[in-house]
Amino acid sequence: MSNEPVNEPEEGVPDGFVIAKWRGGFGNQVGPIYQRFSDDGTWARGFLVGARHTNGFDNCHGGMLMAFADMAFGSAVTYEMHRFWVTVRLVTDFVSGANLGEFVQGNAVVTGHTDDFVSVRGAIWVGGNRPDGPDSRAVMTGTGLFKVLGERPGTSPLLDMRRS
Amino acid sequence: MSNEPVNEPEEGVPDGFVIAKWRGGFGNQVGPIYQRFSDDGTWARGFLVGARHTNGFDNCHGGMLMAFADMAFGSAVTYEMHRFWVTVRLVTDFVSGANLGEFVQGNAVVTGHTDDFVSVRGAIWVGGNRPDGPDSRAVMTGTGLFKVLGERPGTSPLLDMRRS
Repeated sequence: MSNEPVNEPEEGVPDGFVIAKWRGGFGNQVGPIYQRFSDDGTWARGFLVGARHTNGFDNCHGGMLMAFADMAFGSAVTYEMHRFWVTVRLVTDFVSGANLGEFVQGNAVVTGHTDDFVSVRGAIWVGGNRPDGPDSRAVMTGTGLFKVLGERPGTSPLLDMRRS
Repeated sequence: MSNEPVNEPEEGVPDGFVIAKWRGGFGNQVGPIYQRFSDDGTWARGFLVGARHTNGFDNCHGGMLMAFADMAFGSAVTYEMHRFWVTVRLVTDFVSGANLGEFVQGNAVVTGHTDDFVSVRGAIWVGGNRPDGPDSRAVMTGTGLFKVLGERPGTSPLLDMRRS
């Protein structure tokens, strides 16, 4: 097994998800992590549970779900506000397991913004394309508190799409 | 960079830490994760922040700290109770960053046990060998709730050491 970044979506990844680019090593180490911006202005991140993500019970390790929660919940600050951020607090409730071969999706909505702190409510699920869809099974729910830093360079693909 | 498990402690790992063995792939993917049982009956897990753990700011990714929190806090159930477990809820407060090349340690104490649920209070730090030592800097604090499963096979090295 190589740690070289995967360049094409793995088999089993739903249409529209593309590999997220990372500036640091961790995203590649546990990735590929995917992202999708849908025509209705919503977004999600995702990953396909591989052998490298498993625990001793042969399903996704809770640590990987935690790492993904940080990436998926924090993306609300990236995508909705186009800012850099650091995590201050995460609360993660494990609702069900994610099995080897399942595609795990996650996203979050901004619920508050006071001074430099942004709170979000997040969800991680498998099955459908929405956390509350009829085919979806909740894997994790949670909340996050992030400190926002400076503006990201360029423009936000998601915000651009919503404006167009 | 290979994903083959590292067999010898990396340079910079404090004396007494040995590589923890994993039954699933994730521990090796983000590891090596180390563990140490000290003569005074305390224990810690740890990892050396490498390039594969970094975020875009070149220090340890918050997702790696979250994954390690699950492993370190949950180890209280492993080491103190010799049981298997699954994570139910984690609350993680990010106190400071961990830099590339720093050795990160973590442990937890059991604070409650009702029916099949065990609560713990955990700490993650760098510097000294204790979370509250004069050379230590807190990286994360938190609490965990775990559902305990069956007994682990064999005996607990830590509990055996305390009894001897």
